[in-house]
Amino acid sequence: MNKGRAESFSDGVFAFAITLLVLGIQIPDLKTGSNQELREALIRSLPQLVPYVTSFATIGIIWLNHHSMFHGVERVEHTTLTLNLLLLLVVAFIPYPTAVLGRYGALPTSAFLYGTVLTILGVTYSSLWWHIFRRGLSTSASDKGDTRRKIQRHIIGPVLYSIATLVALRFPRVSVLIYFLLAAFYFIPTQHPGPV
Amino acid sequence: MNKGRAESFSDGVFAFAITLLVLGIQIPDLKTGSNQELREALIRSLPQLVPYVTSFATIGIIWLNHHSMFHGVERVEHTTLTLNLLLLLVVAFIPYPTAVLGRYGALPTSAFLYGTVLTILGVTYSSLWWHIFRRGLSTSASDKGDTRRKIQRHIIGPVLYSIATLVALRFPRVSVLIYFLLAAFYFIPTQHPGPV
Amino acid sequence: MNKGRAESFSDGVFAFAITLLVLGIQIPDLKTGSNQELREALIRSLPQLVPYVTSFATIGIIWLNHHSMFHGVERVEHTTLTLNLLLLLVVAFIPYPTAVLGRYGALPTSAFLYGTVLTILGVTYSSLWWHIFRRGLSTSASDKGDTRRKIQRHIIGPVLYSIATLVALRFPRVSVLIYFLLAAFYFIPTQHPGPV
Amino acid sequence: MNKGRAESFSDGVFAFAITLLVLGIQIPDLKTGSNQELREALIRSLPQLVPYVTSFATIGIIWLNHHSMFHGVERVEHTTLTLNLLLLLVVAFIPYPTAVLGRYGALPTSAFLYGTVLTILGVTYSSLWWHIFRRGLSTSASDKGDTRRKIQRHIIGPVLYSIATLVALRFPRVSVLIYFLLAAFYFIPTQHPGPV
Repeated sequence: MNKGRAESFSDGVFAFAITLLVLGIQIPDLKTGSNQELREALIRSLPQLVPYVTSFATIGIIWLNHHSMFHGVERVEHTTLTLNLLLLLVVAFIPYPTAVLGRYGALPTSAFLYGTVLTILGVTYSSLWWHIFRRGLSTSASDKGDTRRKIQRHIIGPVLYSIATLVALRFPRVSVLIYFLLAAFYFIPTQHPGPV
Repeated sequence: MNKGRAESFSDGVFAFAITLLVLGIQIPDLKTGSNQELREALIRSLPQLVPYVTSFATIGIIWLNHHSMFHGVERVEHTTLTLNLLLLLVVAFIPYPTAVLGRYGALPTSAFLYGTVLTILGVTYSSLWWHIFRRGLSTSASDKGDTRRKIQRHIIGPVLYSIATLVALRFPRVSVLIYFLLAAFYFIPTQHPGPV
Repeated sequence: MNKGRAESFSDGVFAFAITLLVLGIQIPDLKTGSNQELREALIRSLPQLVPYVTSFATIGIIWLNHHSMFHGVERVEHTTLTLNLLLLLVVAFIPYPTAVLGRYGALPTSAFLYGTVLTILGVTYSSLWWHIFRRGLSTSASDKGDTRRKIQRHIIGPVLYSIATLVALRFPRVSVLIYFLLAAFYFIPTQHPGPV
Repeated sequence: MNKGRAESFSDGVFAFAITLLVLGIQIPDLKTGSNQELREALIRSLPQLVPYVTSFATIGIIWLNHHSMFHGVERVEHTTLTLNLLLLLVVAFIPYPTAVLGRYGALPTSAFLYGTVLTILGVTYSSLWWHIFRRGLSTSASDKGDTRRKIQRHIIGPVLYSIATLVALRFPRVSVLIYFLLAAFYFIPTQHPGPV
């Protein structure tokens, strides 16, 4: 089976999901249409940028990791394709919790929903990685670093996200800050293979 | 004619249609904007995930099959391109019945509309396959399995979907369950070449 | 300059524009949410499928022609890229008049707007073709058929669309029928190189 | 790391952002649905085409330059990918200020927002170019023209955009004209490597 087409389909979903995020930022609905009203409305909607940037960075990191994971993959068989579709299902869903969080701010429920989806994203990504790693389907998955550290890294991500999700029930703003910091943290080069 | 570009265009439409599905899930329109109201609204909108996941899986399976069908294709001539565009027309339309089903729940009409579109999808896919098969345009279409079984498989899909569509008129929730099970069923590896 | 990347970017815009069309079909806004109300609303919105299918077919044909035009192109220089971006500007705009025509039916204004955009599309496509042809940038543009017929074909398209656009001012439904027939007509294989 | 996949992901975001712009043009909301009302509403919404065309041209130019910048790139390392994602973050955001400018016309606030985003776009693009240039990651970045002129060109763009942004606070219509002229100016072939 052709690896290139699976990659290009995945890239398509990553690219579209990342670009659809912008539709979640509400265009203010003005009454008078005056300049002052627009200015105040735009300033009020500034916090919407936080989930936008966080989701963009998160999808971007997942894409970078997906990129390097598939780079070493030699065979793409049915289970890999299925797990990959599962990952894309979650990626394509991200614009929804992002829009809810942007629209209603960091309420316990919106922050919890957002964190739940990111946790599922991490679990899905780690499952895909685990399948590829365990079956020895990728050369790059096995040739660098020791196994234990790699497994740890793929467990730590979902654990951190699920902790932040629980924090959301009490301190929603803190959890949003954690989601943002986790995405920023994973962008640091040395840390590279990512959020999950 | 360049097969690669037809594939990349198709992949674009598949990837984009699958990602647009998320826009059909309504962001709740709150009055008070309280956390409780948001929680209740989100819980009420949970059933919208069923058509989302079903459509995602269905488009994903069609893409997997399209993938393996075109893998063996050697020549892409006008009729193939035309039938392929017809298939993409239906694929690109799927977000609409998905959104209607998500928004108004499993009413006879919404479930019937959804099933009708899936049936047309199956018929269109089988027509494309039949054209490629009959004209001997694909190597992979002819080298494995016996002919009769393959034809049966491409007839059974649309038949099952049309039965479920008729069930919708009486038992809309049952039909939605069938659509979901059909998509899940076709994901099982051995069953592979797909929903149609 | 890399032809492949220009093609893949164009394919992206074609694929997205064609898939965005579905967002123009309005999801009915029900009051009671009853099954009967939904059925009646969906039946009322059936005519919206006409502009959807027409636009889908038109973009699809333009893509097919773009495909064969670029197939023979050897050098992609600045003017070709600029004219190509101009074509994509019009292609990406098509969802707008399609949605207006779908939402307000075949009024003189909506049918005129739709026809105007298709006419501009034809003129833009023919300009791109003319540039490639005159400069001898494509091998496939020069090796089959005689020159006069090819030029005629690239003039007839825009002329037919502009006539239909004028008809719209008096007989909007007739013009919509003509747009549809023109798209259908260009799908007939022998007629192949296309609507413009 | 595979340059091709980074390019195809970028092309996806560029193509998608450029196609999403059309959703920012409001479909008129009519009361009577009469032909005259539609005509008047469409004529009133004509100015919305200015930000649409300006944003389309701006993204198109950035894509052309991105294209030629990556053409000569030999290695794609982490910092390049990160800066590239930052650029795509801004590109994907453009539909928002475009829609605000289209919806509320050239108010000081909407024109200022629009100019701010274009300025950030320019700064981000120049940063990416500067990183590639300084590290000698691209062959094409170093083989033509002298260094000083190239650096000037990458500074002039953001400066011009930030001046136009300041003009917006006083003369919003003038600033919108400048944004448009800048995009048009950069389309002139000899000027080629671009808006930033």
